Amino acid sequence: MAQVRCGISMSLDGYVAGPDPSIEQPLGVGGEQLHEWVVKLAAWRTSHGREGGETTASSALFERRTAGVGAHVMGRNMFGGGPGPWSEQDPWNGWWGAEPPFHTPVFVLTHHAREPLELEGGTTFHFVTDGVEAALVRAREAAGGDDVVIGGGAETIQQCLAAGLLDELQLDVVPLLLGGGTRLFGELDGSPPQLEQTDVVPAPGVTHISCRVMR
Amino acid sequence: MAQVRCGISMSLDGYVAGPDPSIEQPLGVGGEQLHEWVVKLAAWRTSHGREGGETTASSALFERRTAGVGAHVMGRNMFGGGPGPWSEQDPWNGWWGAEPPFHTPVFVLTHHAREPLELEGGTTFHFVTDGVEAALVRAREAAGGDDVVIGGGAETIQQCLAAGLLDELQLDVVPLLLGGGTRLFGELDGSPPQLEQTDVVPAPGVTHISCRVMR
Repeated sequence: MAQVRCGISMSLDGYVAGPDPSIEQPLGVGGEQLHEWVVKLAAWRTSHGREGGETTASSALFERRTAGVGAHVMGRNMFGGGPGPWSEQDPWNGWWGAEPPFHTPVFVLTHHAREPLELEGGTTFHFVTDGVEAALVRAREAAGGDDVVIGGGAETIQQCLAAGLLDELQLDVVPLLLGGGTRLFGELDGSPPQLEQTDVVPAPGVTHISCRVMR
Repeated sequence: MAQVRCGISMSLDGYVAGPDPSIEQPLGVGGEQLHEWVVKLAAWRTSHGREGGETTASSALFERRTAGVGAHVMGRNMFGGGPGPWSEQDPWNGWWGAEPPFHTPVFVLTHHAREPLELEGGTTFHFVTDGVEAALVRAREAAGGDDVVIGGGAETIQQCLAAGLLDELQLDVVPLLLGGGTRLFGELDGSPPQLEQTDVVPAPGVTHISCRVMR
């Protein structure tokens, strides 16, 4: 049964990005530290066309998570390029260069319509203007029985939680206090769903906590 | 070397108490669920004069944490009784009955002076009106080489972090979304300290994450 799952790194004080994000520091001040655990993995480096890296307790989990994914969904801020309409002359094409690491259709939530953007390696960005539920319908269809991954950011994940669209929440809790920035869980609307802890993997510099989201 | 440590249960969305705390529900709506993992332990039940309970991966950790503690520090809200001066006729004596489970001196941060309150089993509450640093000095002295435990709540722990008084942060992360309430980490003042993850124990219904606080 195909799952809708979300994996994201969060600081111990609940932030998925530090304060003062910018083009140079899209994850805000200190936010890069949230992803140190994954950037050093050989498995991650290979999938991003880089050499070297190491194998840790996170490696098998990284492999499991990246297998069987048929589509991604992300918010406009995670795709990047600032707010407002897309530039016609020099449109923002994401943070990831010519061959993004998704290798599936990616549905980007935005208020501003745009033609699909096909890049190398099987990644095509589709820009969805009619909300998260519509994006999920399209993503499930595109995934053809494989899982759909909600990449972030915080607002998109909160919308998915509130709409009852998530099956699994995979948090990578990093022993780091950012002190400010973007909270993964702001004040949640309505009654938050119940969770069932399904898997915990302690690893160097991170604790992976997976929970089933109960409906 | 005696340590100043803090152990507290936190929901996955960062709360140490749910919304709308009251005398009947001091931990707010849903907040009791934060402590289910410990209340069901045989070791906890024995230490609180109750029978039954079970042994889980949390049990050894609970024993380690409760050993070698020479004094406790807590905020006024954790001691309870509402804000303002102490009633002279019918003063609040804490949530814990005639024999509180601390068995050490306990230093309670308050704006309102009060004579020490000696209860059964070695617990004496001392009311400290000159701030968290003064309370720590007294607690260290009273602990006589044993550790000092900061019991909470959130505000007291934040004050200790900001003042550089904590050596170890022990978070019991419960797979629960409370959606609102008291955050363990609000907006932290100044630059938060760096942490080093020292121990992670996955257990039923909780993940214990211990970090050394770097100075």
